[in-house]
Amino acid sequence: MNYRGSRAIVTGGLGFIGSNLVLRLVELGAEVTVIDSQIPGCGGNLYNLDPVRGAVNVIDADISEPAAFRDALRRADVVFNLAGEISHVHSMQFPERDLQVNTVAQLRFVLACSEDARKARVVYAGTRQVYGVPQYLPVDEGHPIRPVDFNGVHKFAATSYHLMLTRAGMLDAVVLRLTNVYGPRMALDVACQGVLSTFIRRSILGQQIDVFGDGEQFRDPVYVDDVVEAFLLVGQTDVLPHRSFNVGGREVVTLNDIAKVASDLGSCPPPRTRPFPDDRKPIDIGSYRSDYSRIQRTLGWEPTVRFGEGMARTIEYYRDRLNFYLDPDEPNPACRMPEHTSAPWRLRYQKGN
Amino acid sequence: MNYRGSRAIVTGGLGFIGSNLVLRLVELGAEVTVIDSQIPGCGGNLYNLDPVRGAVNVIDADISEPAAFRDALRRADVVFNLAGEISHVHSMQFPERDLQVNTVAQLRFVLACSEDARKARVVYAGTRQVYGVPQYLPVDEGHPIRPVDFNGVHKFAATSYHLMLTRAGMLDAVVLRLTNVYGPRMALDVACQGVLSTFIRRSILGQQIDVFGDGEQFRDPVYVDDVVEAFLLVGQTDVLPHRSFNVGGREVVTLNDIAKVASDLGSCPPPRTRPFPDDRKPIDIGSYRSDYSRIQRTLGWEPTVRFGEGMARTIEYYRDRLNFYLDPDEPNPACRMPEHTSAPWRLRYQKGN
Repeated sequence: MNYRGSRAIVTGGLGFIGSNLVLRLVELGAEVTVIDSQIPGCGGNLYNLDPVRGAVNVIDADISEPAAFRDALRRADVVFNLAGEISHVHSMQFPERDLQVNTVAQLRFVLACSEDARKARVVYAGTRQVYGVPQYLPVDEGHPIRPVDFNGVHKFAATSYHLMLTRAGMLDAVVLRLTNVYGPRMALDVACQGVLSTFIRRSILGQQIDVFGDGEQFRDPVYVDDVVEAFLLVGQTDVLPHRSFNVGGREVVTLNDIAKVASDLGSCPPPRTRPFPDDRKPIDIGSYRSDYSRIQRTLGWEPTVRFGEGMARTIEYYRDRLNFYLDPDEPNPACRMPEHTSAPWRLRYQKGN
Repeated sequence: MNYRGSRAIVTGGLGFIGSNLVLRLVELGAEVTVIDSQIPGCGGNLYNLDPVRGAVNVIDADISEPAAFRDALRRADVVFNLAGEISHVHSMQFPERDLQVNTVAQLRFVLACSEDARKARVVYAGTRQVYGVPQYLPVDEGHPIRPVDFNGVHKFAATSYHLMLTRAGMLDAVVLRLTNVYGPRMALDVACQGVLSTFIRRSILGQQIDVFGDGEQFRDPVYVDDVVEAFLLVGQTDVLPHRSFNVGGREVVTLNDIAKVASDLGSCPPPRTRPFPDDRKPIDIGSYRSDYSRIQRTLGWEPTVRFGEGMARTIEYYRDRLNFYLDPDEPNPACRMPEHTSAPWRLRYQKGN
């Protein structure tokens, strides 16, 4: 990979995966432009880019408003498109908001790319959620599309925009379908961001972890550095026999395993199992494991970081930075939509302290 | 089937398939409420319901505004949801309009149904367009979802809303995936409504028919009365082992066949083949045939009307009614978005003449 001098756009570049990608791109010598409107609840956090402060052009705009970044698009060699809302629970509570953020805004963005960045490779951050409840395991890219929540429906529409325009010769896009991703820079101050975010928060706070159901359902969590590597690979591979790739984790772990690892790292009381809350049961997908053999075969990508190691690195990251990720007055956020783009306690950083 | 006294809602009930369904429901003794906002280009035409004038409650509202029809929803036994835009070409020219009509509005409508018509069966008019270019023939319901245009993407999102909420127990919906439908009451005054509408219009006008490509690609057109029967069947079958059903035609005919049948019925000059226009090629799906064995096996439905017979009936229908379906000043509409809900020549009928 050679990103030296490459002009890269990262939408959602203040968010969890986006910011990790930005840091790596800067390290590789790329010229990076971030587009991020810090929609409440989507995980954007200026502090995430603290290590490259001043070295990255951050455009405070929504991807639905291309006039704000048309010049950057015209110059771009590669567009990493990670802007979006990931919460399944929020999408059921506020479906039209999810539609706006994940579909309407993406439609405007892909049309802008098609017009002004026709030659740039576009890499879209898709999700395993489009598959719904697995009909077989591991789940490959040919699995039926049967999302169980609005987030899955809307992310699939955005996925289809990218693939359809690419087949029509109007865009050059690739979609990564991500499993549960974890690592440094995850939003911890937003509830309902998934099991890993919640368990990591409780670990850091030394609190007991609740596991819904019997805890024996499994996942294949993937460490964010491995995901960043996948983005970089598909961002620069000219000829691709496929345009959709699953990105999965190295190990399969049960929710009980995850709770135990998190509890041990945080010296918490032992985890306990609890019945599924009413609003979670219908959108639970049971057990999931990605078949990532397509990207492995095609590009040589595979996950390298073991789960225990990744969790240790993650929790270590937050140790001295907790004030940038958790509201001291409400360390355990309720599962509702955040009302402010930037909570007052977070603005301390944005104002330069 | 027993629709006597049944309270039925038909969205898009002024349109082509919707109005044929309304006429049949009234014949069967149902109490029918139509919801139709006559969005320009979507085929709504008050004249379509001329035979049942006064016998049907027509609510002039968009499905995106449930406040206008909440009382009707609360009383409904069955909701036939046919409102939408069908033009693939329009969807590529005006993607955000297609998103609004086929996805945003449908989201609000299914949420309203989920809230106020939880016990009603909802039947959604889906489309074979969600499958894209067939990867095998005939195409069954398990075919991959790879739409080639925005219309297909947006109709699949709406399809997913219905199926996802049904799986979650929040709705009781069934989706019919329709192949090319033809018959009386098709809009002829809107361009880009598909090959059948265009060929029928030219047949009626006695004009030469242009076939794009070599004309050997095939379709399985289904006559509207057969489609209406499928809607009525799934509208009243309580227990269903599946929630998606392909609805296909009885015969497979090439575009050349269709052009010949239409030309002969209209005494037109012989059809000629023409190269694909630039804006059509990327969204052409080649040949298509539905595998409708699932609905045949499950509900005993099958198409009954032969293509030649259906075409003869269709063209006969328009013979004495052309002034309600074609603008005398512009009988061959250009392929652009109609600007008026009701063209002035059409308002003659709406005003009561």
